[in-house]
Parts: sequence; C-alpha cells; structure tokens
Amino acid sequence: MKILVINPVGHSTWDKQDEQIYKSFASPETEVKVISLPRGPASVETPEAHAEVIPLVLDVAKRHHEGYDAVIVNCFLDPGVDLLKGVLNKPVIGPCEASLSLAYIAGTRISIITVGSSDGDWMIEERVKQLGLNDKVTSVRGIPVGVLDIDKDRATVVRYLVNEAEKARKEENVDVVILGCTGLAGLAREVQEKTNIYTIDPAGAAIKVAEALVKLGITGHPYRR
Amino acid sequence: MKILVINPVGHSTWDKQDEQIYKSFASPETEVKVISLPRGPASVETPEAHAEVIPLVLDVAKRHHEGYDAVIVNCFLDPGVDLLKGVLNKPVIGPCEASLSLAYIAGTRISIITVGSSDGDWMIEERVKQLGLNDKVTSVRGIPVGVLDIDKDRATVVRYLVNEAEKARKEENVDVVILGCTGLAGLAREVQEKTNIYTIDPAGAAIKVAEALVKLGITGHPYRR
Amino acid sequence: MKILVINPVGHSTWDKQDEQIYKSFASPETEVKVISLPRGPASVETPEAHAEVIPLVLDVAKRHHEGYDAVIVNCFLDPGVDLLKGVLNKPVIGPCEASLSLAYIAGTRISIITVGSSDGDWMIEERVKQLGLNDKVTSVRGIPVGVLDIDKDRATVVRYLVNEAEKARKEENVDVVILGCTGLAGLAREVQEKTNIYTIDPAGAAIKVAEALVKLGITGHPYRR
Amino acid sequence: MKILVINPVGHSTWDKQDEQIYKSFASPETEVKVISLPRGPASVETPEAHAEVIPLVLDVAKRHHEGYDAVIVNCFLDPGVDLLKGVLNKPVIGPCEASLSLAYIAGTRISIITVGSSDGDWMIEERVKQLGLNDKVTSVRGIPVGVLDIDKDRATVVRYLVNEAEKARKEENVDVVILGCTGLAGLAREVQEKTNIYTIDPAGAAIKVAEALVKLGITGHPYRR
Amino acid sequence: MKILVINPVGHSTWDKQDEQIYKSFASPETEVKVISLPRGPASVETPEAHAEVIPLVLDVAKRHHEGYDAVIVNCFLDPGVDLLKGVLNKPVIGPCEASLSLAYIAGTRISIITVGSSDGDWMIEERVKQLGLNDKVTSVRGIPVGVLDIDKDRATVVRYLVNEAEKARKEENVDVVILGCTGLAGLAREVQEKTNIYTIDPAGAAIKVAEALVKLGITGHPYRR
Amino acid sequence: MKILVINPVGHSTWDKQDEQIYKSFASPETEVKVISLPRGPASVETPEAHAEVIPLVLDVAKRHHEGYDAVIVNCFLDPGVDLLKGVLNKPVIGPCEASLSLAYIAGTRISIITVGSSDGDWMIEERVKQLGLNDKVTSVRGIPVGVLDIDKDRATVVRYLVNEAEKARKEENVDVVILGCTGLAGLAREVQEKTNIYTIDPAGAAIKVAEALVKLGITGHPYRR
Repeated sequence: MKILVINPVGHSTWDKQDEQIYKSFASPETEVKVISLPRGPASVETPEAHAEVIPLVLDVAKRHHEGYDAVIVNCFLDPGVDLLKGVLNKPVIGPCEASLSLAYIAGTRISIITVGSSDGDWMIEERVKQLGLNDKVTSVRGIPVGVLDIDKDRATVVRYLVNEAEKARKEENVDVVILGCTGLAGLAREVQEKTNIYTIDPAGAAIKVAEALVKLGITGHPYRR
Repeated sequence: MKILVINPVGHSTWDKQDEQIYKSFASPETEVKVISLPRGPASVETPEAHAEVIPLVLDVAKRHHEGYDAVIVNCFLDPGVDLLKGVLNKPVIGPCEASLSLAYIAGTRISIITVGSSDGDWMIEERVKQLGLNDKVTSVRGIPVGVLDIDKDRATVVRYLVNEAEKARKEENVDVVILGCTGLAGLAREVQEKTNIYTIDPAGAAIKVAEALVKLGITGHPYRR
Repeated sequence: MKILVINPVGHSTWDKQDEQIYKSFASPETEVKVISLPRGPASVETPEAHAEVIPLVLDVAKRHHEGYDAVIVNCFLDPGVDLLKGVLNKPVIGPCEASLSLAYIAGTRISIITVGSSDGDWMIEERVKQLGLNDKVTSVRGIPVGVLDIDKDRATVVRYLVNEAEKARKEENVDVVILGCTGLAGLAREVQEKTNIYTIDPAGAAIKVAEALVKLGITGHPYRR
Repeated sequence: MKILVINPVGHSTWDKQDEQIYKSFASPETEVKVISLPRGPASVETPEAHAEVIPLVLDVAKRHHEGYDAVIVNCFLDPGVDLLKGVLNKPVIGPCEASLSLAYIAGTRISIITVGSSDGDWMIEERVKQLGLNDKVTSVRGIPVGVLDIDKDRATVVRYLVNEAEKARKEENVDVVILGCTGLAGLAREVQEKTNIYTIDPAGAAIKVAEALVKLGITGHPYRR
Repeated sequence: MKILVINPVGHSTWDKQDEQIYKSFASPETEVKVISLPRGPASVETPEAHAEVIPLVLDVAKRHHEGYDAVIVNCFLDPGVDLLKGVLNKPVIGPCEASLSLAYIAGTRISIITVGSSDGDWMIEERVKQLGLNDKVTSVRGIPVGVLDIDKDRATVVRYLVNEAEKARKEENVDVVILGCTGLAGLAREVQEKTNIYTIDPAGAAIKVAEALVKLGITGHPYRR
Repeated sequence: MKILVINPVGHSTWDKQDEQIYKSFASPETEVKVISLPRGPASVETPEAHAEVIPLVLDVAKRHHEGYDAVIVNCFLDPGVDLLKGVLNKPVIGPCEASLSLAYIAGTRISIITVGSSDGDWMIEERVKQLGLNDKVTSVRGIPVGVLDIDKDRATVVRYLVNEAEKARKEENVDVVILGCTGLAGLAREVQEKTNIYTIDPAGAAIKVAEALVKLGITGHPYRR
C-alpha cells in the first residue's frame, strides 16, 4: 500500500521529519511519501494561507496521486479535503476528521488543543461543525506557540500541552484530547504519559484511517459526487 | 452605502447583468459595483473550480474593498466567504447564508433548487451543514441545466424550476423555495407567481442582508477572529 | 414601502420615540408607522402581560394592516408573531427572530442581553428554542433594570449592558451580542463602541428584515398555513 | 387529589362529556372538574382562536385554581400552558406535552394524527418544536374532519384515524400514534384495537401526568421562573 | 392494577422498604410487588454488575410477569429495560426514563444527582444519550456516598444532595433535580423542601408512569419490535 | 500486535472462518485470535440472546485479554462493548461503532443493511442512537435471511444485499452502505462491485480501528471511567 501525504506549505523543510512520523504509525508494508507544494505559505495559520493552499492541494494531488492508494492532506484544518474527495477516485483523508473518528470510540468528551493564533481556533471550530461532530467536542483550546516555533523548544510545547489538557479535564471532564495541529505530531504519547489522558496524534490518526479505507476497498470513484 | 459584489469567475460577461439584478433589489441610496476575477473558471460547478476561486476571491476582495461598506461573493456555494470573514473589517455575505437567514422567517420547511450537476448538490449540502441549518432544509434539488446554459433559454429554466418546486411541495410539504444558484437570480418572482410557493432570490437576499448589517453598524473588525 | 409597527402595550407613550428609532434604521423610501394597542399592559415583562397582548396584537394587526407591506411586533418576545404569520397575507416579523437571523451571519456564539426580571429570561429562551436556534445562543443574560426604567437613566443602562457583554465574551467567548428587549433599541451602537463586540439592535434588525422580505416579494398569502 | 380541567372554548357543551372521559382515566381518588371559558371561540382550530384563548385560559386558571392540585388545559395545542407555568404555584399540564412524555417510553417513532385544517398541523408542529422533541415525531397528519363534526359520526372518525395510523406505520414505520386533538379523546382504545398500533389518548395522558406530578410533590412555586 | 418491581440485585434486603416507598407513590387501587434476583450483585455500581444483571432481569421478568400489568426495573441505570421492552407484551419502565419524562414537563434545565462512583456517572450519561434527551440534562453529579451506605446515615445523604442541588442551581441554573439512584428513593421531598428546587423521586416517577401506561391501555405486544 | 476477537455465541463453529476474514483485513504483523463463549445462544438475533451474552462477553474478556493489545466483540449490536470499555485497560471495539467511524469519512448518507428479524433493526437503531450518529444514518434495512442461514447460500444473500443497497441509493441517495451483521463479513467487496456503492465490512472496520487505537497508544486504563 502506498500513501501520498501532501504538506500544504510552500517549502519542503518538514517533509522528511513528517515522513518519519507517519512511518512510525504506519504498518510495515505501507509506503509513505510526503511532498509539499511547489509554492505557498510557510504555514497555514491565517485565513489567507488557508485559502491559498486549497487549489494548490487539489492541483498537486491531481498531478501526483497516480500510483498511490490514498492521499492525506497534512494539516489539521483539512484544507481542500472535502473538495478533493469530489475529484480523486481513491480515499482522501484529513487529520481532523480522522482524529475525531477514532477519538469518539475512546471517549465521549473531546478537547482539541491547537497552537497559537485564535484564527486557528475558529477555523478548527468550523471544520468540526462541518463534520457534524460539535456535540462531542467540548472545547478547542490553544497554546501560546506558533506553528513555526514548535520545533525550537519541544519540551516547552509539551509543557503547555500538558497544562492545557489538564485544564480541559478539570473544567470539562474530557476523556480524550486531540492534538489539533499536525505540527504537534509525534508529541501525543508524551502528553498522554504525563497527563494520563488519552491523546490522539493527528498524523497517526490520518495514516491509520487511510490504511483502513484502502484495506476495506473503499475506492474506485470520488467520495463526494 | 456602497456594496462590492465579486463574481467569482474569470470573465466579466455577467457583471453588467448581475449589477442590474442586484440594483433591482437594493435600496435607492445603495451603490452596487460588480467585479469579477482577473482569471479563473467560467463557472463554479466543480470541486476544482470551487477550490480555484477561493484564494482569488480573498485576493480581489483585499485589493478592491476600500471605499465599500460590505462585500458579497456572488455564488451560492459562498466560496471563500467564511475565510474572508476572518480578513476584512466589514460585513462579508454569501448568497446561501443570506437566503437561509431570510427563508426560515418566512417558512419552516425549505427546499433549495440548484442547477445542473450533482456536484453542485453536495457542495451546497456541505455549506448548509456548515451553517448548522440542515434541520430546516428538507432537500437540495437540481434541474438539468448547467450554469452556462441558463441564459440561452430562461423560459425553459423557469419551467424546470416550477416543476421542481411543485415536486418539493408535494413530497416534502415545503413552504419556501430558495433558488440555489446566483445564475438563477432574477427568476424568483416568476417561479413564485406560477407556483404560489414563496421563492427566495439569492442575489436579492444577499444585498438586503448586506444593507442590513451595514445599517446596523456591524463593522469595524473581521467577523471571525 | 410602508411598514406597520405594533407596540404591544396599552399606551402610546413610546410610539413617537420608537418611530424615530425605526426610521433611523430604515431606508429613506420606507415609511414607518408605529401604533400601540387600544388597551393592554404597560410593558410585556410577565407571563400574564405576554398572554394578554397576543390576541390584541392579532386584532390590531387585522384592523390596521391594509395599506402596509409588512407588520412588525415591537417586543423581543415576538408575542403573537407566529400566529399572526398564519393570518396576514404579508410578512410578519418579530425582533427576536430577525436579530438572530442577522446575528448568525456575523458570528457563531451569540449572547442575548435583556432587562430585568428572570421571567424575561425564560420567555426569551422559549422563543429561541421555538426558532430551533438554541445551539447558536450561548446565554440569555439580564441586567437589573425593568423596561419602564430604561429611559430614566440610559447611561446606567449602557454601563450594565457593557458590563454584561464583556462577561459574556470572557465566559463564553461570544462574538455577537443581541439587545434582547426593544426598550433597549437605539443603544446597540454605543455598547458596540465601548466593548468592541458586535451588537445587534432588535428594532434595527426587525425593520431591515421586513424591508428585505417585502423587496424579495415574499408576500401574497399567510406565511404559515 | 383535585384536578381542574379548563376547556379553552366559549361554551360548556363538551364539559360533561370531557369530565367523564377524564374520570375514566383518573385514579378513583382523583376528583376532576371541567370548566370552560366565560367567552371565546367554539373551537381552537385557527390562529385567531388560538390567540384569543391564551389570556382567557390564564384568567380563568387564576380565578378558579384555588383548591385544586393541578390544572390541565384541554386542547392539544397546549394554549397558554407554558405561560401559565410561570403563574400558578402548582402543576400545569398540556395534552400535547403529556402525550409525548408517555409516548417516547412506549416507542421511538411517533406520529400525531389530528383533525381537519392544515392550520392545526403547523400549530402542532410549532408546539412539538418548542418541546424539543421533533426528532421523535415522524409526522403530523390530519383527517378530513373538523373539531365540531367529530361527535356527529364517531364511527367515520375512527375509520379515518385507523386509515391514517396504518399509513403512518407503512410509510414511516411508527410504533406509537398520538391522537392530536382532545376532541378525539376516548377513541384511542378503538383505534389501537383495529390497528394493533399503540395509541395515546391526549386527555388520558394529561390526567395521568397531572396525577404523577402532584403525587411527586412537584408543587409550591411556578414551574417557569 | 398490579405492578411488578424487580430489584436487580442478588438479595432481598431492600424489597420490603422499596415496596413501601413504591406504595407511597402508587394509587390506592394499585398493588405493588417487589422481588429481587435469585442471585446477582449486592448493588449495581460497576460495569460488571450492570452487565451481570441484564439477563437476570429478563429471566426473572419472564418467569414472574404473569398476572401483573406492568414491570419496573428498580435501578436508575434502567438495566435491561430496552431489551425487556422487546420481550414482554406489557409496559416495561425504567426509573431514569420515567424521571426524565416527567422532569421535562416541570422544567427545562435538569440535573441528575447520583451516588458514589464515577462509573455511575458515565453509565447514567450513556442512558440519557440513548434516550435522546441529553440536550435537557445539564449535568450528572455525584455525592461521595456508595449505594450500600445510603441507609447508614440518611441525614448526611440529604445534606450532600441539598448541597449538590444548590450547586447545580448556582452553576447551571437548573429548575429540576432528579435523584439518580433508586437507593435515594424517598428522599426527594426533603431535598425539595430544603432547596426549593423541584426534585423528582425515581421510584415515584417509575410507578406513576407505569400506572399511566397501563391505564392508557398501551399493552398487548412488546414495545420494541 | 495481538487482537482478541470474541464471538458472542455459545459455539465455536464460526471461529475459524471469522479468524480468516479478520486476518484478510489485518496488517501482516497483526495476530488475530477468535474465541467464543463457553456457553450462550447460537446467534444474537433476539433481545434475550443480546441480554444473555453481555455478562458472558465481559467474563470471557476479563479471563482471556491478557497478552492481547485490544479486544473486539464480533457482533454488530456491539453487545457489552460500552460496559467492557469501563473494565479493560486497553481498546475495546465494536463493529457497529467502528463501521460508522470509517463510513462518515467516505460518505454523508449511510444505510445499514442487516439480516432477518425486525428485532435486529431496532436493536441496531438503539446502538446508532447511543453513538449519537443517527443524523448520518438514513435507514436500517433488513434482508429476509437469518444469521444462521447466511452460509447456506451466500449467492442469494449477496443478491438480497445488492437489491437493498440499490433501493437505499434510489430512495435515500446514500453514498455508503454498511453490512450490519458480522455474519455478512466478507461480502462487502462483492456488494460494492455489483452496486458501485461504497460498502463497509463490519469485521474489517473493527480490526482496522483496533489496530489504529493500539498503534496510537490509546491504552493504559479503561476507556470509560
């Protein structure tokens, strides 16, 4: 099985690291290829960046999907995911929808913790509403770190995440936390160990759901039509 | 009051006609200016076209909104509308959301009748879901005419719309119909006269809601933040 | 266009002032006439007063609506509005439904701030539930002032409203506030300036929605039937 | 225990028969007294009649409730019931809310079958929506008989009800039917025997819920406040 | 009328006391018989105990229901109630569903206060969700007392309940409280007197709803089929 | 990774075949072990059988889960699954919840097609309601074959499934079908090929979701607590 992951940013800085994170969750027989956009924003944290990448994601997906069994768009806003589902004749998966689809089996009150800007918050809330799952999500929370700063000090980032997850448990009695930014991929296990709250990795969720849909043979024509 | 209407297509063929339709619903003191994109698809009927216009809408809006009190994106899919609400510091209105906001005051069971392709159907359904109003919409229906063919034979288009509206009344007991494509703007009154079912014009709804929000002074910072 | 506004109280004390407020939001070509009931309560703040005015509103509307294009019932409880929609063959609008229909375009978390008694609160909550929009309204809040005392010290009233709006933002992260009493009409702009939270004027919302429905031609038979 | 039943009509023609029907469902130790309005419509089938009786119900209830443990408003539209709950310091029950509260324990898909006019239909739909139970009600159906004609030929009425109940089972797979007019009280058992579909009598439901709330001691201050 | 109450525990310690509580709410002409399981857990506070009693409840009900008009399962988790509704040809009632069906007529914001373990909490939440009434329940709260300790010091239990009810009113503005454990049956009136918040007794609710359904003749085949 | 699958029936007839089906969907490195109950019904098609297996599933799971990373209960009613989530400190998955969690990513209107008895229908509907996903499921349909007869003539079973799936598409415009009985596991691909409707295999969905949760490390304490 071959999975294509599209990093919806205009640089390839994160491709190698993301490929490793995706592979760490993939089955041994799954091949993962991460590519990014030929041009585009450095990160997807503003409405403008979100808008900019949508057609680029469709374009890159259409030009590169041949030979792959499924396509993941590696951003928690799921940019272009629903529209791409109307184009490709194979599974298209976003980390937000995949995380939620696994989270509600493990729990009933879910908090999403994302990074930085309040713009991130409302764009995630719109996505959750679109999926019709807002009843299960008790809060979308942010930590005071931007996407581009995550890698500078991952220990601090984890501390923020732990703090926010514990607040979510105290205030809303959540039983599952989703890391609401693919830039946070790879940190879920550490957050879970420190909080004892189940923590979903968005990249891990995306690759496992992609493998599931491919294995189930849910393929052959666009998902939306 | 000055309203900017953006036609999210790559040609200006419809600008003049649309300006007349918008003006026919506007208050006398409202100025309406319709512009289109510097490049882009001929119509927004496919996922690819929908994706393509989203950043172009944001870009054109940012470059041209100065001097206007509100911005309307003239397509029933509301392409880029939510993201643009996070950018401009003035009202941004989509015809779909505006039509629904007026329709549910006049009725309780609403059918949306759109044109042509089934792609249009599911993209509208996604928009309705995002607005959280799917409970009030009993169906999204289509007539077998593409956007680009509407002007070729408007009498036939009206006949199709009348037929579909009457089916919606018979099958779902609807009390309001929304014309679910801005290409159908200007035909609502005729459909209503022939069916005796209240029929919402999407361009008319958008301009009246824009005027309302401006007059109410709901302006000064982005709607989403 | 001519709009009839019915003040559902048994005195005409407020008619002139309300007419000015309505006109301040109306289009220049719209004529507004405010009338009140031949008898009835001084204000609509109790269940008894609410019940009393319902048939009086229908009665006055039926006797006076000729020559008008739409009818507004000037009370945020929308008393008699749904039943009147089953009687008149023209648009009937309540300030509560109109405010909500515009508010959800400008925001996603809405707080309604009303006056005085807790009776007001639950009667508004019932109205919101009836409209099927309770998901969008995060709270109905009250300030410690009765309807009849609003005009005695509008500066204090504004201070209360500002305080409550800021609490709603802090506690529920609201992005829009609705003034939940037509006695508060005319104060929205000041509250918005002081809080930087979008604030909907209920009279302004009602007249703009009335103008919209008339201009769209949604007329000719009762809305409910 | 003493229960006051208010017939929200301006004549006492039905009082004696209704008292017998209510007693047939009441516990032996429950006393039932049926009274009607000093003036008012012959039946509650139009918006005007519905509006007219609301304050009269409150007025009669306030003047006559002393000495009774609970008050029932004997009309399936529950006219004035919610407002009266904000006035009396004892249980106030409407047949619609009571029927639904018992029906959803016996089934999951509920159809309401009412009489005559389509006005009845939408007014009942509004009531169901207000109660927040529209998810459980699959249809509101009507039979071609007006309230005032029910007693002229009860065999025909039963035949219509049986026919409509069977259609509801066939088309919507309902497992419970509610007779949606207190004028139909007393016919449920016959409909159930002929259709083998559980059928709720609205008067029976109201008296049993009234007895329940009194016995549970849910009394002492207005329900809504 | 004869009602069979099944105590879903493996001892008969509580049968006599429960029979008295049930009788205190029953109509004089209603006979109540309380029986327990031939074997089973001492109380139903864990998932294992909940699972264990489900088939035992069905088994005891099938062997003993002859001669009774309705069957109540005396535990607020309603264990086996939905499945038993698919087996017996007479009303089957659980205290949770019955309490909610009466509570929402008396109020709109409901808190359920149960005992001890957090397991109780989530199992009740699942039951409320299954009934589709989670919108009406603002919280499920617990007091730090286990089922088996309730009778040791009922004064302390009442104090805890009063305290928790008052917190629910303060934090969520509830207007009705349900005692969420049949071990708390008999304490509702005292809690209500001390808090002035309407308080539903789960055993009382169950017996009144059972009497209602029997009297309405909703009997003759399984409720679910 | 080692997954334990519990067949909630009192015989081991199906264990080997089910193990092969599960393995056909599992990753190569996943070991699957299917066991059944020491005693119990031949199939789970009645409320009594459903009740009977619940504690047996918990009991078998507690005695055999050591050494496994996750536990699947191999029946589409998910019998005992929620309660078992409160007991084991590792993922517990039911085929119904797993199928739905994958189906809503591939489509928006889902039909579940199950076997035989109408009892199956309502028990599945209860499960879907419990999961809070009834909005996404447009119908639960049955084919006239009992669980025990599936293997006698699988060609006929496929023909029934194809016929019912096509009816669901025609009548409800579904885009995904779930085979609503684990006895139908292994037939999804054939149904999909013949109908061109995406078809979810319940066993396949369960094993892929189990692998996902294990790989994500969502383990260490009971899911419900």
